[in-house]
Amino acid sequence: MTTVIKGGTLITADRMWEADILIEGEKIAAVGPDLKGDTVIDAGGAYVIPGGIDPHTHLEMPFMGTTAAETFESGTAAAASGGTTMIVDFVLPGPDGSLVNAVKDWHRKADGKICIDVGWHVAITGWNQTIWQEMAEVVKMGVNSFKHFMAYKGALMVEDDEMYASFTRCAELGALPLVHAENGDIIAELQKKFMEAGQIGPEGHAHSRPPEVEGEATNRAIMIADAAGVPLYVVHVSCEQAHEAIRRARQKGMRVFGEPLVQHLTLDESEYFDKDWDHAAQRVMSPPFRNKAHQDSLWAGLTAGSLQVVATDHCAFTTDQKRMGLKGFPMIPNGTGGLEDRLAVLWTTGVETGRLTPEEFVAVTSTNIARILNIYPRKGALVPGADADIVVWDPKLKKTIRAANQLSILDYNVFEGIEVTAQARHTLSRGKVVWSHGQNERPRAGHGVYVPRPAFPSVNRALSVWKDLNSPRFVHRDPQNIPSGV
Amino acid sequence: MTTVIKGGTLITADRMWEADILIEGEKIAAVGPDLKGDTVIDAGGAYVIPGGIDPHTHLEMPFMGTTAAETFESGTAAAASGGTTMIVDFVLPGPDGSLVNAVKDWHRKADGKICIDVGWHVAITGWNQTIWQEMAEVVKMGVNSFKHFMAYKGALMVEDDEMYASFTRCAELGALPLVHAENGDIIAELQKKFMEAGQIGPEGHAHSRPPEVEGEATNRAIMIADAAGVPLYVVHVSCEQAHEAIRRARQKGMRVFGEPLVQHLTLDESEYFDKDWDHAAQRVMSPPFRNKAHQDSLWAGLTAGSLQVVATDHCAFTTDQKRMGLKGFPMIPNGTGGLEDRLAVLWTTGVETGRLTPEEFVAVTSTNIARILNIYPRKGALVPGADADIVVWDPKLKKTIRAANQLSILDYNVFEGIEVTAQARHTLSRGKVVWSHGQNERPRAGHGVYVPRPAFPSVNRALSVWKDLNSPRFVHRDPQNIPSGV
Amino acid sequence: MTTVIKGGTLITADRMWEADILIEGEKIAAVGPDLKGDTVIDAGGAYVIPGGIDPHTHLEMPFMGTTAAETFESGTAAAASGGTTMIVDFVLPGPDGSLVNAVKDWHRKADGKICIDVGWHVAITGWNQTIWQEMAEVVKMGVNSFKHFMAYKGALMVEDDEMYASFTRCAELGALPLVHAENGDIIAELQKKFMEAGQIGPEGHAHSRPPEVEGEATNRAIMIADAAGVPLYVVHVSCEQAHEAIRRARQKGMRVFGEPLVQHLTLDESEYFDKDWDHAAQRVMSPPFRNKAHQDSLWAGLTAGSLQVVATDHCAFTTDQKRMGLKGFPMIPNGTGGLEDRLAVLWTTGVETGRLTPEEFVAVTSTNIARILNIYPRKGALVPGADADIVVWDPKLKKTIRAANQLSILDYNVFEGIEVTAQARHTLSRGKVVWSHGQNERPRAGHGVYVPRPAFPSVNRALSVWKDLNSPRFVHRDPQNIPSGV
Amino acid sequence: MTTVIKGGTLITADRMWEADILIEGEKIAAVGPDLKGDTVIDAGGAYVIPGGIDPHTHLEMPFMGTTAAETFESGTAAAASGGTTMIVDFVLPGPDGSLVNAVKDWHRKADGKICIDVGWHVAITGWNQTIWQEMAEVVKMGVNSFKHFMAYKGALMVEDDEMYASFTRCAELGALPLVHAENGDIIAELQKKFMEAGQIGPEGHAHSRPPEVEGEATNRAIMIADAAGVPLYVVHVSCEQAHEAIRRARQKGMRVFGEPLVQHLTLDESEYFDKDWDHAAQRVMSPPFRNKAHQDSLWAGLTAGSLQVVATDHCAFTTDQKRMGLKGFPMIPNGTGGLEDRLAVLWTTGVETGRLTPEEFVAVTSTNIARILNIYPRKGALVPGADADIVVWDPKLKKTIRAANQLSILDYNVFEGIEVTAQARHTLSRGKVVWSHGQNERPRAGHGVYVPRPAFPSVNRALSVWKDLNSPRFVHRDPQNIPSGV
Repeated sequence: MTTVIKGGTLITADRMWEADILIEGEKIAAVGPDLKGDTVIDAGGAYVIPGGIDPHTHLEMPFMGTTAAETFESGTAAAASGGTTMIVDFVLPGPDGSLVNAVKDWHRKADGKICIDVGWHVAITGWNQTIWQEMAEVVKMGVNSFKHFMAYKGALMVEDDEMYASFTRCAELGALPLVHAENGDIIAELQKKFMEAGQIGPEGHAHSRPPEVEGEATNRAIMIADAAGVPLYVVHVSCEQAHEAIRRARQKGMRVFGEPLVQHLTLDESEYFDKDWDHAAQRVMSPPFRNKAHQDSLWAGLTAGSLQVVATDHCAFTTDQKRMGLKGFPMIPNGTGGLEDRLAVLWTTGVETGRLTPEEFVAVTSTNIARILNIYPRKGALVPGADADIVVWDPKLKKTIRAANQLSILDYNVFEGIEVTAQARHTLSRGKVVWSHGQNERPRAGHGVYVPRPAFPSVNRALSVWKDLNSPRFVHRDPQNIPSGV
Repeated sequence: MTTVIKGGTLITADRMWEADILIEGEKIAAVGPDLKGDTVIDAGGAYVIPGGIDPHTHLEMPFMGTTAAETFESGTAAAASGGTTMIVDFVLPGPDGSLVNAVKDWHRKADGKICIDVGWHVAITGWNQTIWQEMAEVVKMGVNSFKHFMAYKGALMVEDDEMYASFTRCAELGALPLVHAENGDIIAELQKKFMEAGQIGPEGHAHSRPPEVEGEATNRAIMIADAAGVPLYVVHVSCEQAHEAIRRARQKGMRVFGEPLVQHLTLDESEYFDKDWDHAAQRVMSPPFRNKAHQDSLWAGLTAGSLQVVATDHCAFTTDQKRMGLKGFPMIPNGTGGLEDRLAVLWTTGVETGRLTPEEFVAVTSTNIARILNIYPRKGALVPGADADIVVWDPKLKKTIRAANQLSILDYNVFEGIEVTAQARHTLSRGKVVWSHGQNERPRAGHGVYVPRPAFPSVNRALSVWKDLNSPRFVHRDPQNIPSGV
Repeated sequence: MTTVIKGGTLITADRMWEADILIEGEKIAAVGPDLKGDTVIDAGGAYVIPGGIDPHTHLEMPFMGTTAAETFESGTAAAASGGTTMIVDFVLPGPDGSLVNAVKDWHRKADGKICIDVGWHVAITGWNQTIWQEMAEVVKMGVNSFKHFMAYKGALMVEDDEMYASFTRCAELGALPLVHAENGDIIAELQKKFMEAGQIGPEGHAHSRPPEVEGEATNRAIMIADAAGVPLYVVHVSCEQAHEAIRRARQKGMRVFGEPLVQHLTLDESEYFDKDWDHAAQRVMSPPFRNKAHQDSLWAGLTAGSLQVVATDHCAFTTDQKRMGLKGFPMIPNGTGGLEDRLAVLWTTGVETGRLTPEEFVAVTSTNIARILNIYPRKGALVPGADADIVVWDPKLKKTIRAANQLSILDYNVFEGIEVTAQARHTLSRGKVVWSHGQNERPRAGHGVYVPRPAFPSVNRALSVWKDLNSPRFVHRDPQNIPSGV
Repeated sequence: MTTVIKGGTLITADRMWEADILIEGEKIAAVGPDLKGDTVIDAGGAYVIPGGIDPHTHLEMPFMGTTAAETFESGTAAAASGGTTMIVDFVLPGPDGSLVNAVKDWHRKADGKICIDVGWHVAITGWNQTIWQEMAEVVKMGVNSFKHFMAYKGALMVEDDEMYASFTRCAELGALPLVHAENGDIIAELQKKFMEAGQIGPEGHAHSRPPEVEGEATNRAIMIADAAGVPLYVVHVSCEQAHEAIRRARQKGMRVFGEPLVQHLTLDESEYFDKDWDHAAQRVMSPPFRNKAHQDSLWAGLTAGSLQVVATDHCAFTTDQKRMGLKGFPMIPNGTGGLEDRLAVLWTTGVETGRLTPEEFVAVTSTNIARILNIYPRKGALVPGADADIVVWDPKLKKTIRAANQLSILDYNVFEGIEVTAQARHTLSRGKVVWSHGQNERPRAGHGVYVPRPAFPSVNRALSVWKDLNSPRFVHRDPQNIPSGV
């Protein structure tokens, strides 16, 4: 049984052209003109793109005394309906601290629930010999990236020496360290200051996490990665300060990647000043939304190449959960949604305005992260042999985003009321249509599989060679030039 | 009749994998495992890459009272032997000033002589209505890029208003302006100053063209392109100052490309201080070689994405021609070679050191420029349908560069004595093996064809949309708010 | 006859302290506690500061087909009432092109009219041997600064080679080149474009002079000054782009000064979008007002030390004169006022907000420019021997700025309606009270004198030493290493 | 009894002029022409400058298991002979942790020993309620600056939250936080790494403290100071990375000062690669010497205004003490000398080369730090009422620096063999000649006094106003817009 996607204009990270795609089983079998297959999917008048990859989600994550409401089922269903065919979710070690057990736990949670494919990042939230050893084991389990929180003091936060140790281990294992870059110490102090002053509303969240605090941590993480001799990936870059640190590093030849979120590209801090508490609290995430100058910086980074990936940090808490912070913004669970709307919002605000070329849109929504995470071209590409994760992207399919209509489990949507100009007509995951616009069929739980990722991508290997060639030079001194001691 | 390249490891700008390539006629027919063909080319132990594209050559160019010695035959033969399968040469208008006639003249010069494919950039060396009109005509002839010299005062140099006019025209035509960015006025003054002081040796060439002079012009060209609403391509970026201007522009979202030369990446200004006059004069090119700090900047730009293309500015004058400047460095014909050695030198100093990944090597030697010049994936790619411009790149094939052994017509080589670690085992141009290592068969003149390039690449289109959306806002004033005049 | 200023708090560029000032004749005789004199001026509750110096005025200047309405009498009276005790006005060569004659002409215009002291900058608006020679003569006449317009194409504008020639001459003479930095070529093109599109309103003025156009020219002037080996002073720095170029230069050790205007620090481009044509046209000056981000950059420059002087570019045209541009913004005479309000507006928006320390206020309103122009401590200081140009500055003397109340000849004021918190209680020029608040006595014409300025300030001398030590190194080649020619 | 310094050319931070100085007792009584006094000091052919202030010394400091060999007597004698008339030394809390006791202890150590005046900085090496309270007390004792070590993990190092707490306290008290900015965590890791690899020589010191490590900490300290709303002073800025962080901050209007050392301006890292172990170990200080590119950055900072003060971090250990690190560079006591040679070396390499004007020389050796530390014009000025700390600086008095000839207690000198072109002919401390060249009379112990420094300098006050005006805005929400809770 074969399927052919006919009549569309293909967009990849490097080109745009008219061609059909033939799918055999789960894989792309051919790309070219006039292909034939048993089933035909009409892409007439539409673009055909690699399925989106969202490398930053937190489904069903226990956090801040509650658990993210979005489930593996609802989250991946929402993703599929929005044109995303793979997510990479963050595995947090449980009370036993074991990375291996945590990965197994995440497998268990996803098993039979996921509608699209998944991968895991594993968080390093402390340091000891067991973690050092288990990092190698989870790499063997297909995890090639480790997350480090520089914020959330007293909870997930790690110290500089712990980061150095973990980054060094990443270098040995050919893995990629990720950082949530905000200075947790200073945030804690500012939270205390505002709370003590009786300034307990959600806008305090933004005030306690100013851009300088993010820029600082980004800069610090970069230095540590450089010392450890490993590339670095900075998640949710929200501001010029962090972006500047990344640019500065890259211009020294350092291998640093940056990931803005679609929310930070399009929404601003005025949301936190909304008179409605719920509205403001629903937007509480870390880092917080910034202003237009920061947005301009992020957009420019996407075209300049200093930022590579647009993600969502989808970590969805319901309005009820948000109200845990009524007595003080530090208790509002951090996180919001976006998984379902990422492609449509980015297309509308990016491609339709000329800020991004269509090719760049594909690059930042799938191809770049697939390369960074070393699963390219299995994912993020339209080439024979690749997984048939494909979206028929209809640039004429307008809609106004409404929480009322979404597949996400959330009872609100931060993009509420925004009109998008394009949507997925069909989403295929590994060769199977999991979503078709207007047919109202929910993506099927259990279709998704886990995608292991090999270590040692090209960038790690090159950097290791360079660091070896440029390792510190030591001096040979003849004994007569060394005093005999005191 | 089909050919298959077997057993190699393919490298493209986005990945590295083991596959065979099947060639039918001039085109790649298939890429995959276990392909079969009538003829087999052994790529065992080697890489297989898209043929190099050198977008910056000046063959047989009349310049500074003489004509570049490298001919279309010798230059393209040399290129082929070094793994380059396409060049883009600069067409200069002749005495009649006609762009169309100049293009025809270049066709005539290349016809039957070229061993590999060619394209043309056309130089805009003045401004009038005829040029405005002829730009459209040469675009129809397959030229989508126009070169502007900000140096060579009294000869090729154009003024700011001329650049603005031409850049605006490029915007309309969907073409790309190129600039040679050095401030010609200041160079002329410095040349005069040094000559008057009796400082006539070749090192005066470097002194009269300091990095600040290049940085300034780069910055100026960027501003003009931004005002005209068109992307910009800066040729031979040699220094941090120019690179900084490019980075600064890109970080504002401007669409600016930068092209370092392999010479500037690897050779430095000490060459001009050589005690041997000929040695120094042979290295005279504009901009001159710089120091190590500038080199580091350029290398970092290639990985950071702020610089995209490594070229050569191959404009080869013999030692005898160089001696035209014995009475004063301003009369030394500007230009040197590199076409034959670009890939080998870049691989050795870039990939072998870990400064570049293999994928980045391919990106900067072929793919990026193919995309920028809108001939991708016909060139710069290993996909079905692409021209079979392919190099079997042997990473074990060492040699020491010697002018004595080169195909270039020159009697010296700026890389003389440098040991390279890799070379082309075979070079295929449009499906035909035009060079095989060790077989000593000169590439055949006449094999090459002209490759026309369509206008309106993706970046031009996006930029136009953005500029339209952000065009200056004008005010409607009611008549009663406008005074009736004096 | 002596005068003593009693009971005030003195502020200078380096400190703030309580002391009296004793004046004998035109000079400060002593500074210290408990001084006695024949006349006592009460400074109780007030600050005592050096009189302001405005180094950027154009009084009675013929320009754009008319003549600036502010006269030497009215302008200097207005200045005195606002606490400014010296201006440096720009001398433009007349039709005969002679610098010497122009200086004489300016002396003639000011003679008997000026209420406070004056100095001259002389404009270089072309280049030839006579100008080269006359530069030395006007230096002998007490002019140590030469202005260059990079804008006003077809009128005042000079080309790069002319600037280089003039800058080199400045280096020889120990003088300081000044630049109006905007790219005149591109402005002319943009003016044409907007006019052709029928966009003739005053906002077109701003659109045709975007920040990038100013940044470019600033960057270019800096490069030329560096090549010529001379310090540079950039007048009316209005935007981050120009400021960035200055910072970048300074961080290389280049000697570049930058002068924002009080207007650019406090007013923004929205003025040009005013529905009232007159309102908009009255604000037309070059460079135009910018936005808040640019203002922030300029303010930071004042404290960071990258910008040194706050001036006004007072070049005042009446509303009637402005209407010369009713048929098109390029015909609106460029210039506006500020001379009378500079200190009060800067104090209110700078010192009262904590953006500037009181000492920095004095530095940027008098001391720094006195040092740059080499008339320190005759001007800009409160030390024995200095000219008694002193202002008793009352921080409790509020007023709302109204054109109706001003001494300036203008019929409007760009600061109309702004409330300032401080004013001059008394202004002394060379020992004489020329203005007292609330007494309504107009400063007396004829009191002011011309202040010649010596060449070779300290910075010029140091730079010359450095440039000599770092001049290009030339190679001695033995004859046998130089070929004998062709 | 009065003294007059006759016939010299005075240099201050703002000007250079010929005048005499009359001294009555400890103070300057008059500055002007033709002054008369009981005793005459001949300044003919020489400059007269404010005595140098070295704000960064560690005399007799217990550190790394030993005590700095330079005593208060020898150190201040050496200082006086080199033209320095005041030092500010670092007070470290003892085992009881009390700041007050530590200050008393330092008074005790200096009492009767010091040849010139002193002040104290107090180090904050931890955080608790007692320290919070004692900070106010030591401010009353005349200390307006607190030092924070971000390096020396396990010893002096403080964490980010401790710095924030202390910086906030400084803001309240009108004091200035100082930082030693190097990331102690990463240094400790790198030390361990190199030691484990058997790389135990002194060059390991430099390798374990790369510029990025210093840049990172500088950037972090700046962010924390900004969050706390207080100015910041970064001691021993040694590299472009740290300088860049300072520049970036200043260009946002932040109040950050930077202090390069004369050693970092003139000596480079090659010292650590010396074949002689003692030579290398004698140069071990933190941060280590860097390369020429870093030196260029620091020099430019002094003229650009981004760096303000040249100090020495004089912390002198003998060769025998250095040998405590024979078994591993981390045990080499960190510190070296310079106090005696600072002015002569800076004059020779700065003023003689044209890198600094004479006025800038004075600014960076005395005036700027006097202003920053709020003791201006008592120190750092030549005005009536100031302490008569004056140096007759002879620009013709050459010498070659030799440890054999120095007053410092050290048995070596990092500037050994350097020829300086100028020296102090006479050094006066509070009106008394404490050193005369060629007379070989050692400065007298006990002459010096402690100089208390008031809090709340101008910059602190301005910054507090600005921060108040720009404090975070909080939202008033009506009860009906706040949900009633969960």
